[in-house]
Amino acid sequence: MRWTLPSDRIPEAWFNVLPRLPEPLQPPLHPATKQPVGPDDLAPLFPMALIGQEMSAEPWIDVPGEVLDVLRLWRPTPLIRARRLEEALGTPARIYYKDESVSPAGSHKPNTAVPQAFYNKQDGVPRLTTETGAGQWGSALAFATTLFGLECKVYMVRTSYNQKPYRRVMMETWGATVEPSPVDEPDHPGSLGTAISDAVRDAATRDDSHYSLGSVLNHVLLHQTVIGLEAKEQLALAGEEKPDIVIGCCGGGSNFGGIALPFVLDEGVELLAAEPSSCPTLTAGTFDYDFGDTAGMTPLLAMYTLGHDFIPPPIHAGGLRYHGDAPIISNLVKSGRMRAVAYPQGKVFEAAVQFARTQGTIPAPETGHAVRAVVDEALKAKEEGKEEVILFSFSGHGLLDLQAYDDFLAGRLDAG
Amino acid sequence: MRWTLPSDRIPEAWFNVLPRLPEPLQPPLHPATKQPVGPDDLAPLFPMALIGQEMSAEPWIDVPGEVLDVLRLWRPTPLIRARRLEEALGTPARIYYKDESVSPAGSHKPNTAVPQAFYNKQDGVPRLTTETGAGQWGSALAFATTLFGLECKVYMVRTSYNQKPYRRVMMETWGATVEPSPVDEPDHPGSLGTAISDAVRDAATRDDSHYSLGSVLNHVLLHQTVIGLEAKEQLALAGEEKPDIVIGCCGGGSNFGGIALPFVLDEGVELLAAEPSSCPTLTAGTFDYDFGDTAGMTPLLAMYTLGHDFIPPPIHAGGLRYHGDAPIISNLVKSGRMRAVAYPQGKVFEAAVQFARTQGTIPAPETGHAVRAVVDEALKAKEEGKEEVILFSFSGHGLLDLQAYDDFLAGRLDAG
Repeated sequence: MRWTLPSDRIPEAWFNVLPRLPEPLQPPLHPATKQPVGPDDLAPLFPMALIGQEMSAEPWIDVPGEVLDVLRLWRPTPLIRARRLEEALGTPARIYYKDESVSPAGSHKPNTAVPQAFYNKQDGVPRLTTETGAGQWGSALAFATTLFGLECKVYMVRTSYNQKPYRRVMMETWGATVEPSPVDEPDHPGSLGTAISDAVRDAATRDDSHYSLGSVLNHVLLHQTVIGLEAKEQLALAGEEKPDIVIGCCGGGSNFGGIALPFVLDEGVELLAAEPSSCPTLTAGTFDYDFGDTAGMTPLLAMYTLGHDFIPPPIHAGGLRYHGDAPIISNLVKSGRMRAVAYPQGKVFEAAVQFARTQGTIPAPETGHAVRAVVDEALKAKEEGKEEVILFSFSGHGLLDLQAYDDFLAGRLDAG
Repeated sequence: MRWTLPSDRIPEAWFNVLPRLPEPLQPPLHPATKQPVGPDDLAPLFPMALIGQEMSAEPWIDVPGEVLDVLRLWRPTPLIRARRLEEALGTPARIYYKDESVSPAGSHKPNTAVPQAFYNKQDGVPRLTTETGAGQWGSALAFATTLFGLECKVYMVRTSYNQKPYRRVMMETWGATVEPSPVDEPDHPGSLGTAISDAVRDAATRDDSHYSLGSVLNHVLLHQTVIGLEAKEQLALAGEEKPDIVIGCCGGGSNFGGIALPFVLDEGVELLAAEPSSCPTLTAGTFDYDFGDTAGMTPLLAMYTLGHDFIPPPIHAGGLRYHGDAPIISNLVKSGRMRAVAYPQGKVFEAAVQFARTQGTIPAPETGHAVRAVVDEALKAKEEGKEEVILFSFSGHGLLDLQAYDDFLAGRLDAG
């Protein structure tokens, strides 16, 4: 079964978790002075509306009408009960997934790309720069900027630029310009850290440009809460009082935050982040102030981190290869409200293929991490004979990651 | 705006156009005897339920519950008003598209793959064979067979097999076996005609196998009528009395039939097929009895044809490279109830990129033909100052055809 909502039932306000956190968020610090950054420090990079959202104490923040108009191209997204997967597992658990793969860019990323493009347009900024790893975020911003008539420059991690030409073509089809990063070292494979440095430098040195980030920051997680808010309403339509556990894959935290944050005040709802064991930020990182990029140009954020010079191995889930994690997610893990689990990619693809062969849709490798956690949770429920309600975010499809499936099916995939 | 329907509002009966045709359909003829084929002639290849549908005089045919259960994974598909495209064109026309790209395989093809897999499963047939050109149909059947636990063997046109490895991976992810065609001539580039011959030969010579076809036949078009039936209901929700024109791209006819046939009895609704000028079956072919395949193994069908030995040039819209057309579509074009228009691929990609940059979703090259026709129709409405209502089938997305967009954007595409 599948629960849709009419397009006038899209959430008209975002859920702001900041005033609801069990412990207050530690402020970001200026990279040079190590003092808390203020709005003026951020103004060269972001429009004031986003800076305001970054620090807002309002419990709900209205979604502008122009943003709703674009989100309605694919939202509300469907909630689907994974009955065929349940049957294959023989579990008494009821598994629901929120299908974010139906967006034009194929993932949840446009949920924040659209408002970011809108607020910049409103501020008269004609050009945005950003970084992208595997290409999900760059695609989303290219899509959003073309709808608002903005220019878009994407710095793409060089290995992905060379290995994933189709993601580049997607961005170019939407009118963006794509350049491999680091721009000044043509033999360097690049990383999210170097690409962030390139994109921030570009925006900071040009009057006509702002920078746009696809995860980690508070306003990004805020925009993603439409996922969890819609899912709540759809679970009620499905006759469920509440989920017992909410699961999402977690790299920078925007997908997991999007599905989980609206449940943060709900008692008896467990919140579980799934990350790769090759980049185990939440399960093996240290909670500390650290830079968001390699070059140390961004503010210092209080978060779980593997160190800003950590170079993760080249696993297929490029969207999860980030050394840090959102301060909001880090705060909630530290306080015990959320927990995390890590998986090697061999186990991830095993679950992803099982999902594809039962439910049809082929998960992105990132999404496969959530699927792995869901399967394990459902098997545990089977052992315990427990009618658990599992909700997870199907954050994106894998149609631009089929090389990874080919490697897995042919036994060429590094299982780690 | 976007109109969805709850999953219990999926059509529970298919619309059978056979008893409603202005002139009766000419029967298929046996390839050897040239006499009309009967059910027994088809029994080695198809289950009796499908053979019955192929010849049925019932105006409506019930969709089995097991089929509805699978279709509900993505159906009803949304109807979307293309307001941003309208604004970009400055047209008074109102443009609506039925988004069939949201299926797990990314096109309308699963609408018939699912019932075909079901009826074969019901008949105890454990294995299906088929052909695929660009890979849309092979993917759809691989998806459907995995859900019903059937084996699937796909013969893929050799040039596509070599040039589109990701389509092969998609089919293998769903558990299918894929082999390049023709199987006995490793240097031959292959065509849909050779692949049909390979697939039919395989099924005809094995007791455990049936053959499955993704277009052309009456039962295939029947299954696709869910597209037009849902669109009718959604147009009413959008406050439209009726469309003035219904448009679809047309290769074998299953997509165009799916959106157009439910409107065939409605007065004042024009039905327009868009095809490639490099394979102009309806606009430049001859109406005659011809074989469906190259080797002359299939029954002879009364249809518009370019000749069963016609080898279309290697354009990007592989799904439209077929020498013939569905007998139902051919019949309705011949009688004047439908008409057709042909476009060169340069003009097609121009419109497809405009669609991507206004509405977001990137069209499959096949779908681009319909978009081109829609844009031309909307510009004509602008010239005439006419508030026309245009409905078209967005038959599939182009995420596995990005090479074609790269060629177009880089000026490498053959415009013809």
